[in-house]
Amino acid sequence: MTPNAAAAKAALSHIEMDEAPAAIRSKSRDFFWYSPILKERLDHLEAEFVVNPKSEAEVIEILKVCYAHDVPVTCRGAGTGNYGQAMPLSGGCLMHLKNMNRVKEIHPGRVIAEPGIIIKDLDAQTRAESGQELRMHPSTWATASIGGFIAGGSGGVGSVTWGALRDLGNIIRLRVVTMEAEPRVLDFRGEELHRVSHAYGTNGIITEVEMPLAPAYDWIDTFVAFEDFREAMEYSDGLANNPGILVKLISVYEAPMAKAYFQRVKAHVTEADTLVGIMVAPQSLDGFQTFSARWPNARIIYRSDDLQWDRSPGPVFEHGWNHTTLRALKFDPSITYLQVRYRFPDHIELVEKVRAEFGAEVLQHLEVLKESGRICFAGLPLVKFSTPERLEEIVKIHEEMGCMIFNPHRYTLEEGGRQSADQRQLDFKREADPKGLLNPGKMITWDEPDFDYAKIYAYKGMLPKPEAAE
Amino acid sequence: MTPNAAAAKAALSHIEMDEAPAAIRSKSRDFFWYSPILKERLDHLEAEFVVNPKSEAEVIEILKVCYAHDVPVTCRGAGTGNYGQAMPLSGGCLMHLKNMNRVKEIHPGRVIAEPGIIIKDLDAQTRAESGQELRMHPSTWATASIGGFIAGGSGGVGSVTWGALRDLGNIIRLRVVTMEAEPRVLDFRGEELHRVSHAYGTNGIITEVEMPLAPAYDWIDTFVAFEDFREAMEYSDGLANNPGILVKLISVYEAPMAKAYFQRVKAHVTEADTLVGIMVAPQSLDGFQTFSARWPNARIIYRSDDLQWDRSPGPVFEHGWNHTTLRALKFDPSITYLQVRYRFPDHIELVEKVRAEFGAEVLQHLEVLKESGRICFAGLPLVKFSTPERLEEIVKIHEEMGCMIFNPHRYTLEEGGRQSADQRQLDFKREADPKGLLNPGKMITWDEPDFDYAKIYAYKGMLPKPEAAE
Repeated sequence: MTPNAAAAKAALSHIEMDEAPAAIRSKSRDFFWYSPILKERLDHLEAEFVVNPKSEAEVIEILKVCYAHDVPVTCRGAGTGNYGQAMPLSGGCLMHLKNMNRVKEIHPGRVIAEPGIIIKDLDAQTRAESGQELRMHPSTWATASIGGFIAGGSGGVGSVTWGALRDLGNIIRLRVVTMEAEPRVLDFRGEELHRVSHAYGTNGIITEVEMPLAPAYDWIDTFVAFEDFREAMEYSDGLANNPGILVKLISVYEAPMAKAYFQRVKAHVTEADTLVGIMVAPQSLDGFQTFSARWPNARIIYRSDDLQWDRSPGPVFEHGWNHTTLRALKFDPSITYLQVRYRFPDHIELVEKVRAEFGAEVLQHLEVLKESGRICFAGLPLVKFSTPERLEEIVKIHEEMGCMIFNPHRYTLEEGGRQSADQRQLDFKREADPKGLLNPGKMITWDEPDFDYAKIYAYKGMLPKPEAAE
Repeated sequence: MTPNAAAAKAALSHIEMDEAPAAIRSKSRDFFWYSPILKERLDHLEAEFVVNPKSEAEVIEILKVCYAHDVPVTCRGAGTGNYGQAMPLSGGCLMHLKNMNRVKEIHPGRVIAEPGIIIKDLDAQTRAESGQELRMHPSTWATASIGGFIAGGSGGVGSVTWGALRDLGNIIRLRVVTMEAEPRVLDFRGEELHRVSHAYGTNGIITEVEMPLAPAYDWIDTFVAFEDFREAMEYSDGLANNPGILVKLISVYEAPMAKAYFQRVKAHVTEADTLVGIMVAPQSLDGFQTFSARWPNARIIYRSDDLQWDRSPGPVFEHGWNHTTLRALKFDPSITYLQVRYRFPDHIELVEKVRAEFGAEVLQHLEVLKESGRICFAGLPLVKFSTPERLEEIVKIHEEMGCMIFNPHRYTLEEGGRQSADQRQLDFKREADPKGLLNPGKMITWDEPDFDYAKIYAYKGMLPKPEAAE
């Protein structure tokens, strides 16, 4: 351990810590191994110590002590991100917010909670007390924290109705602690939210969240099978454009994904079946069935309320979003993925162009969502990985066709986003983290304002690999 | 009274009736006088007797007796329609469902009720018991019945989120009694709903409704003023395309409507102000304010939660939809209106074209709503009435420009709709009303299948005007 980290750790010894090497290693990791590129670069990373504050006061103390000792602090929720969001590139202190898991207030339409609560637990409490739940959550609902979702996620189950997490109104308020000699506590609303949401904890630590709620219905899970991919895609687009039919999820899985990778589904589909996974509100079931009956080739093969299977497939949403890739990886470790935005109004034609270009090398997995109020697709296609160069080429071809790519094979904010500085995030980092100690290496424009994005950013402060260190 | 009506009335004497001539006259009328064309044609109409059943059993008895005596039956809720929907063209029996006003069951996401309940009372019960309310309602929420809305309405406050009443999922089930020698009781769901929804009671009497519910938030009413009409329109379109900001109403009133016709608003606006009326959920207030602040010329002049006036303007929704016309008519009896659909994606440009064509003769009143999932506008412009011929010409010019017109100066289903037979409604009328006694004269294709829509349909069975009868 570096002398600085040792001194900071000693000064914080009254706060709960993880001491076991296995725990420290596991707390230093997320789902970065979805990407062969990130796996190669980040696999060796480890924090020097892991601290688990129980309160905002303890967070302030940790930030103050680490500031005094020049120790980097990387904050983490449950570590369910895929891009190394919460992995400590420079070692130092890993701050895990799992103990900050209280629900503080529940009101009609909103909840105030600490950031470390697991989304499933948060939903359970708001449902029990008020019949409400979060508007949206990642497919890692059962394990992810709300703070981690806000700091490192972008949308998910529910985005077909509510749009993205960053859309106005989908976060109400964030309380943030700065990393200065005397940390400040700030409440952000409105435009200010963009300073710290989806900032990977690079410019402040979220200690309280206020989120809008939606009604917690007993969602009906259903799978609908089609033999034609385009028909499945048009059905999904059409269903989402029926505002009277309340859905929470519409996912499209190109054949043979369901047969090949969905363990509990495979007995019920063929190699040729494209599958659509849907969550529909009970009061909208009639509308859903009426709509589906207009598609003579749509086969409703599963309904959690009625048409059940001997072995339940589990929640439909645990087949969607990033869980699709996870399921495929279990069967075929050579698979990786991309994150594509197919924008309205060209989304359907664009997917067809991409399919025609790549065929089975890039299997289509679409999530229906709203962008600027219009229904379109987020693509999380399964990519048969060959070489990093081919992966780069696949990204380039997508971009040339007019797709927007959020590259999941990068560990910085800019490369995973729009490949440009977010001035609001950078400006706030200057205020809130003058020493640049918060999750270092994740905001390129802090380190190298003139970076040209020609190839993957290599953070100079990254811990050397053990081989290189020998 | 005709001998047939007298016999039927006598046979039904044990059921509650209105006997006072003034009551019979008022129960025979709706808001048809919004239209100078309908006022001229329908003003003299009166039922021969008015009966108020308390139960489905009494409805069945009334239909059976009237069927036996060949007496027409026109069913009515609160009579808040604008097109003579519930006016008895041929006299006969007027059946008023005001006594069928029970809420039967309330569940998460849905309610089962009798059709005669006033929407305000229905919302009050679902709110008190479950924190829910109907997804949408007409601006006559305080006086209209739910059955009348379903049989004669098309959407309203809430349609910006949920789309039109006829969209899949916005009605769950309707229970209907037929008019035969032995009336049948049928439950309709899914595609079958279109047989009887928005059918003016021409092919069956609704005795029970099952409707989806949404959360009943403490909606915040607000008025936003703009000096530029187009900017107000683009602001409204943009706001509706922010799915994270939950709204229930967005109405645009071209200048000088607010100054001229909105009594409690006029002190707060100028002749040049175009006004936008909005209902926003409390948890979306921050998002709404953040969005509005991006429009430097948007002035939030009223907020029911904060920025109040000495004299409350009353509910914002009582300025929108058909209430706009009502308020204008109180100041200027020469005003009438149209119903226009400006469809996505050309809605903004189309409104501008229409404005350029007509200027002050057709003042724009827009209601933002979803059609096939896309935000667009319903127009209910205020028209300065000169002659029936000019009104016809205004309609024609709109249609030539690419607007769809739902003509509110007509009393038949087809003319107020798409000027073509609704085969499902007609087919069901053949089954359910073999003698053609239900609300006669309202379904052209029943009477004159070859009608060419060149000019207003003149129902041959209509009661003669008193002058003509002298």
